[in-house]
Amino acid sequence: MTHSALLTDLYQLTMLQGYWHEGMAETAVFELFVRRLPPDRNFLIAAGLEQALDYLEKLRFSATELDYLRQTGLFDDAFLATLRDFRFQGDVDAMPEGSLFFANEPILRVTAPLPQAQLVETRLINLLQFQTLIASKAARCVFAAPGKRLVDFGLRRAHGSEAGLLAARAAYLAGFIGTSNVLAGQRFGIPVFGTMAHSYIMAHDDELAAFRGFARSQPHNVVLLIDTYDTLAAVDKVIALAEELARDGIRIKAVRIDSGDLGELARAVRTKLDAAGWSEIGIFASGDLDEYRLAELHDAPIDGFGVGTKLTTSSDAPYLNCAYKLQEYAGVPRRKVSKGKQTWPGAKQVYRHYDAQGRLDHDVLTTADDHLEGQALLQPVMRQGKRLQPPESLVGIRDRIAAQLGRLPQALKRLDTRTDYPVAIAPALHRLTEETDRRMGLLP
Amino acid sequence: MTHSALLTDLYQLTMLQGYWHEGMAETAVFELFVRRLPPDRNFLIAAGLEQALDYLEKLRFSATELDYLRQTGLFDDAFLATLRDFRFQGDVDAMPEGSLFFANEPILRVTAPLPQAQLVETRLINLLQFQTLIASKAARCVFAAPGKRLVDFGLRRAHGSEAGLLAARAAYLAGFIGTSNVLAGQRFGIPVFGTMAHSYIMAHDDELAAFRGFARSQPHNVVLLIDTYDTLAAVDKVIALAEELARDGIRIKAVRIDSGDLGELARAVRTKLDAAGWSEIGIFASGDLDEYRLAELHDAPIDGFGVGTKLTTSSDAPYLNCAYKLQEYAGVPRRKVSKGKQTWPGAKQVYRHYDAQGRLDHDVLTTADDHLEGQALLQPVMRQGKRLQPPESLVGIRDRIAAQLGRLPQALKRLDTRTDYPVAIAPALHRLTEETDRRMGLLP
Repeated sequence: MTHSALLTDLYQLTMLQGYWHEGMAETAVFELFVRRLPPDRNFLIAAGLEQALDYLEKLRFSATELDYLRQTGLFDDAFLATLRDFRFQGDVDAMPEGSLFFANEPILRVTAPLPQAQLVETRLINLLQFQTLIASKAARCVFAAPGKRLVDFGLRRAHGSEAGLLAARAAYLAGFIGTSNVLAGQRFGIPVFGTMAHSYIMAHDDELAAFRGFARSQPHNVVLLIDTYDTLAAVDKVIALAEELARDGIRIKAVRIDSGDLGELARAVRTKLDAAGWSEIGIFASGDLDEYRLAELHDAPIDGFGVGTKLTTSSDAPYLNCAYKLQEYAGVPRRKVSKGKQTWPGAKQVYRHYDAQGRLDHDVLTTADDHLEGQALLQPVMRQGKRLQPPESLVGIRDRIAAQLGRLPQALKRLDTRTDYPVAIAPALHRLTEETDRRMGLLP
Repeated sequence: MTHSALLTDLYQLTMLQGYWHEGMAETAVFELFVRRLPPDRNFLIAAGLEQALDYLEKLRFSATELDYLRQTGLFDDAFLATLRDFRFQGDVDAMPEGSLFFANEPILRVTAPLPQAQLVETRLINLLQFQTLIASKAARCVFAAPGKRLVDFGLRRAHGSEAGLLAARAAYLAGFIGTSNVLAGQRFGIPVFGTMAHSYIMAHDDELAAFRGFARSQPHNVVLLIDTYDTLAAVDKVIALAEELARDGIRIKAVRIDSGDLGELARAVRTKLDAAGWSEIGIFASGDLDEYRLAELHDAPIDGFGVGTKLTTSSDAPYLNCAYKLQEYAGVPRRKVSKGKQTWPGAKQVYRHYDAQGRLDHDVLTTADDHLEGQALLQPVMRQGKRLQPPESLVGIRDRIAAQLGRLPQALKRLDTRTDYPVAIAPALHRLTEETDRRMGLLP
């Protein structure tokens, strides 16, 4: 994954020039959090930490990039010269990738000289919000289709190539079994799935000839798309072909339906296949699916689903109200009080508490130096610009998510009922907020 | 821009293997179009052609990519060997980038040997749908804020880096004056804008000191963010500073408001600035904006807006119902009749008609070999894999869009009223559809 140093908002660089002129390079603490969850989300899954750390480790300005900045006419040469050696050498504490989290809980904390902590804001948000968005959406699909095989089909309508790639990763982490995105297979080792489109059928003059040609071409991967013309008529061709292919030891794994009333068609197709003795041929469905539609199809005899556009764009909530905010500079806690955008000051920690059955019970948000009972969620992941651990395996993160989703109270798993998980503010954080407001003259 | 050959759905490659085994490499015609416009869109703007052509020209498989495909176990070595020399050598006809278009009108037609035309489906849709989505959304923002300066602020909440980059491009084409995205500035020459964030103010112990430090650091780019604590109190500091800076020849260009009731605050800020004799200091606003909010702020004394998340994600319509469909193979027109997804067969052309005032009146969709009155919208852009013209300048496309939006009937410019632009089906296309259905046995 490439990360140009120019992949940032211009104001990060103009601010850096200001800090440089003013000699402001003391330690800053920034935290990344979500202010409010979207209406139909009861929890979020932190994802994208691997790419965020990769970005921080690789961040540097090329000569070409510095030339471009010079040409804008906005920067002093002496300031630009300092960017030549710019490296991120700060500390990062973060929730492990795949952690469940809620509003106002920091998922990542950067502690670094002010310019370093400032410059990285844009790309950190860009990387973490998107994968978090998709992992959270994908988990809802997994809840809606228990026991079904879900595959990401979203690349074509993803917002560009990186979105397609990272959405495939996030969906896999959240419990999808794979993706149609070949690049995601290569880059991340995610299992890839795919067989044929309508164009394959249409390019043949005869649907049965298309089925036969495909099956004989790749006898170990035979899934036949049956809705190009008349779905039920196509099933008769599949049955005839299954018998023919069986004589050569070729097995039809499944048929795919991509349009129409998927539940009704699946029932009719299942009945026909079973009546002909082909119970082993599965049914795969796709087309305009999301967690709501998957829930409606709960009882349909469908073994797996391709979920595309609405997953990859998180179409009912295509962004998170997330922020990366200065919490402390030069040892002094800071707080923004803009209307509707107030923040809790200082470096923070989140403690999680479970009930007797091991289910999530409540979290406590407090200052980083307050040591409380419970599971501390933010852990050291980078010190002085170096990772403390090698990249986690996708399977490891996937297992963490599965384990955590298993500990989620039932009410929070509901797709369309808003339940607020309790996040308490500890006395230490209340005290720090008061002190900060008093120092800033906001309290008497 | 990099385009891996693996940036595709696996089924494109399994189909290619099928075509190879069956010896199917005759000429295919595919067209890319939008089936239905989203509820709040009366028109779309075709964008992304430049990146699509770039992709087609550069498309090839690297040795590493072929190795990965081999490892999947899905492909014959002999088939993979054919991919080593894979090049796109087909023809492309397209609407010029920035053309207005409507449902069912092809914006791009690929005519190439079947495997070539097939493989490119995923990335072509990926590139064209996203920029089209954003250009169309951005044009609505431009309508909603006539005479105001609009800047793209969306990178952080874009779906990955490519989305941020291409959204900046699409918004600029549609009439935005620039972007905060520095990489978009470098790659595309789009004007970049930006000054300071709340963190800059918060890192200082004193708001006035922050304003002063910033202004003296970059005296030609002074826009001060005034809503970190108390917006109106901050204006008093701006006024005091403006007088101090004026003595050194430094001018405050504008203040920025990023929270609260933007209209009400802008009025109060304007009144204070004017009363102090600082009418030359402009007001810039940002925060949660889209075309609907911009329309509400129509009368507020705001000179420019930063539009971010809701633009970059096209949040009210984060995807288009678009498709890339086989229309003809080996000289025979093809048609999909899946429920709700029927297509018009054959290679097509769109003719546009204007009324006496030069405004768009209606379009006619017909077969490519039918020559009608009106402006033919699809033009040759690539022959045998080579572009016919060098890349267009962004300014050229931008001017085309501005000219076309000026010819849009008033009803189609409305933000929240659906008006269907008339697209007639020519007799030749009706005849071809009947012939196709009869040949396919769908008609008696």
